[in-house]
Parts: sequence; C-alpha cells; structure tokens
Amino acid sequence: MICEKHNGDCMINIYGKNCIYEAIKANKGLLKVFVLDSIVKKDTKFIQLLKDKKINFVIENKKNMDHMFGTGHQGYGAHREAYFIYGEEILDAISTQPKRLLLLDGIMDPHNLGAILRSVDAFGYDAVILPKNRSCSITETVAHVSTGAIEHIKIAYINSLSTFVIRLKEKGYWICGTDASGDTEVSTIDPNLDLAVIIGSEGFGMSRTLVKQTDFLLSIPMVGHVNSLNASVSAGIVLYALRK
Amino acid sequence: MICEKHNGDCMINIYGKNCIYEAIKANKGLLKVFVLDSIVKKDTKFIQLLKDKKINFVIENKKNMDHMFGTGHQGYGAHREAYFIYGEEILDAISTQPKRLLLLDGIMDPHNLGAILRSVDAFGYDAVILPKNRSCSITETVAHVSTGAIEHIKIAYINSLSTFVIRLKEKGYWICGTDASGDTEVSTIDPNLDLAVIIGSEGFGMSRTLVKQTDFLLSIPMVGHVNSLNASVSAGIVLYALRK
Repeated sequence: MICEKHNGDCMINIYGKNCIYEAIKANKGLLKVFVLDSIVKKDTKFIQLLKDKKINFVIENKKNMDHMFGTGHQGYGAHREAYFIYGEEILDAISTQPKRLLLLDGIMDPHNLGAILRSVDAFGYDAVILPKNRSCSITETVAHVSTGAIEHIKIAYINSLSTFVIRLKEKGYWICGTDASGDTEVSTIDPNLDLAVIIGSEGFGMSRTLVKQTDFLLSIPMVGHVNSLNASVSAGIVLYALRK
Repeated sequence: MICEKHNGDCMINIYGKNCIYEAIKANKGLLKVFVLDSIVKKDTKFIQLLKDKKINFVIENKKNMDHMFGTGHQGYGAHREAYFIYGEEILDAISTQPKRLLLLDGIMDPHNLGAILRSVDAFGYDAVILPKNRSCSITETVAHVSTGAIEHIKIAYINSLSTFVIRLKEKGYWICGTDASGDTEVSTIDPNLDLAVIIGSEGFGMSRTLVKQTDFLLSIPMVGHVNSLNASVSAGIVLYALRK
C-alpha cells in the first residue's frame, strides 16, 4: 500500500533485514514484526532485540511471509505506520547548523529514490523535499532500497519547488543546482553555508526555471562517450562533495 | 541469453533507446535492429541513422517487441553479438596515460554493475575487471542499465583478483582500496599515477586479503545512522574522486 500522508490508520509493509533492524532501532510507528521461522534460531540477537524493546512479533512460515512481503524479505518483515510526511512546514523542523536540504526535481524511480535516501543519511543532510507532481512516492520498494535510512530522514512533499526555493532564499539558504552548463567549482563553496542542493531527473535534468533560481551551478566533470550518470550516483557525488 | 565469453555465435538481446543508439554509434557486433512501428514516425533521425550506417533493421509491432525484449524496450531493440570479454591479457590492451582500472570484488547485482559501467565511462576509466566467481555476468539488464556505456568499456573476467593484483603491481600500478578502516585522504593521491581501484561488495566490502595488498586505503567519510551506501553510489564517488 502506497501512502503519502501519514494519518494514523495508514500502513506500509516494510521488509528486508537492514530495513527492519533500522525500524526497530528507531522504533517509530512499528505495529507488528513478522519473522520467518528459520530466522529464529539463526538470528537470536534479533529475537532478543524484539523482546528487549517489547515489540509485538509473530513467527511465520515462508509461504505466509512471501504472501505478505514478496520474495525479497530475507526473513524479516513488519507492518508499520506510513512514514510521516512533511509539507512546507519542514523548514520549521530543521535546527542543525549548517543546514543541508536536498531538493529532487523529477526523480520517478523508487530504486533511485531509495539509494538517494541512503546517501542523504550518510552525508548528514537534514531533509529531502520533492514536488507532489512528477515524483516517486514513498513506497515499500523505496523503504527497502534505503536499507532503513528512511527511518532517520525527514521527507516533505510540496506543491512547487520553484515557489519553495523563494522561501528558502528568504530564510538564508544558498541554492546550489547541478547542470551540464554549471561552472562553479565545488571547492569554492563555503561548507558553513546553509545549502539547498537540487538534483534533476536523469533524462531532463533540472527545470530551466530552477536553474535560473540557483546561486551556484555545479557540473560533474565527465569525459566519457555517454556523458550521463545514474541519478542516484550523481546525487551521491554531489552530496559527498557538499557534505557537512 | 547470458554469455560471458564472446565466441562468434553467441548473441545478446539489447534494448532501450540509449542502449541501442550507443550500439549503433559504436557499431560493433550489431546483427539486427528492431524498431517499434510507432517509433518510425516519431524518431525519423533514428531511422535515418540506421540507413546511413547501412544497419539491417526491421519494423515490429508491440506484441513482438515485448515478446523479444520484455516491456522495457521503449521501442528500440537489437540482436547483438555478445560483448567481447577479456581475460588477464586485458593489461596488454591498455595504452592510455595515466592508466585507470576498476576491480570489482563481489558485485552481484546487475543494476549496480550497469550503473557502475556508466560511471566508469563518465570518469575515463580504461577497464573493469571482475573475478569469475561471485560476480554478476554481462546480462541484458547490465547492458540496458548501462544506457550503452558498455559499448565503450573494456571488461575482463579473471580467476583471482588477488593474483591479478600481484601482476598489476609488477606492471607499476598503485592499488587503491576502499574500506571503513581506510585513512588515506583522496587529495594526497597523485592523479598522474597508474591506479587500480578496488570496490568491494555492499554487504561485505573488500576481502581481507585484498585490503592487505593495497597501497592506499580510502574511506568515504559518513556521518549517518545507517553508514552504508549503495554499491554503485560508493563506486561513483570513488571513481569521481580519483578520476583522470
């Protein structure tokens, strides 16, 4: 079930060892954990963790696990409240210094979004902001591919990136885009600035409107024949280069 | 059909717009191109390119295209000779200065391998070397995800990475690994060196034997909760940092 807005009675099925471990560590909104029978003996640490954290769990056979979670569960599944999704009020929820936001302009693929969430967590970004249109939703696949990083990240869906960027500028953020036409050297950007980094879609890049709104425009130097990277790879490189 | 060794009568089905365009540009081993009927009017440039290059092509309906190439073909497919795969003689085929090789230790996922091939092309690496065991083969999916970058990259499958690294050292390569224990700063590595960069698998990293054989050991600085990146993302970051 795909659910963009957490409203208390909306649930998501999460699965995979890392994903479930992170959900238990974060212990937010977990309703019930499902453990494949053969895991009970193999991963006693996991069962102990469930008991220590007083988390409701049941042991299931492979047929039931596959039925609930597909075949990629690795023996670990859970029912979880849908992830909390912010709107524009996300800006009031960020108090770190310096601030780092990632804006995704047209990322539609759940595997790319899931991999990007891992990089967001790894490089200390505070939140990911997506437009409601032309964006991937937070699906089971996104959660799985994020290997649980999603538990630690603030996510917002907003109406218009362009309007949101105007608000960001008022709040003191510097807007950093990525485009083949970019000529800013990463090393010239002061890492102590509050930054909002924009990554465009794989096929089309950032919209022209957003490109015009940037304070810095980076390009990733490439020498090859194909001259394009996977969207999650280029996001990873930019987040690494502009990490906290 | 999965084919690790090109032997003249071994064929692979490739598909997707970028993949087929790159195959035509490279024009190596293309046997026959298949075009969805609705593409003929939409992409006249493509049809002209096929005629200019005197490439054998047929126009097919959606049912036949889906049957041959699955549903991800975007209207473009081809029969191609299997990609040429090197063995240890790969070392004699590299004449650029400085040299850059990527060694993949345990990459099993075709999506990761395909995305890595794009980065290899983008950052000017000369070749990718994989061990015959515990590696993803060159499948249709790898070719598709590489968006045609595979046409421009030398690929080798060898018996043992560890033995190969000994040969690389004799040939003057510096061996650069990646591991959480790494303490070399990327900026301290002379970009004019001949480098062989090793990326380990997502779950297990590089083998301990290989870690011991490295001259430099890098780590990607991470601050998050999950502390791991998607394999193709971490490969992309390292290839970017150590690009030509």
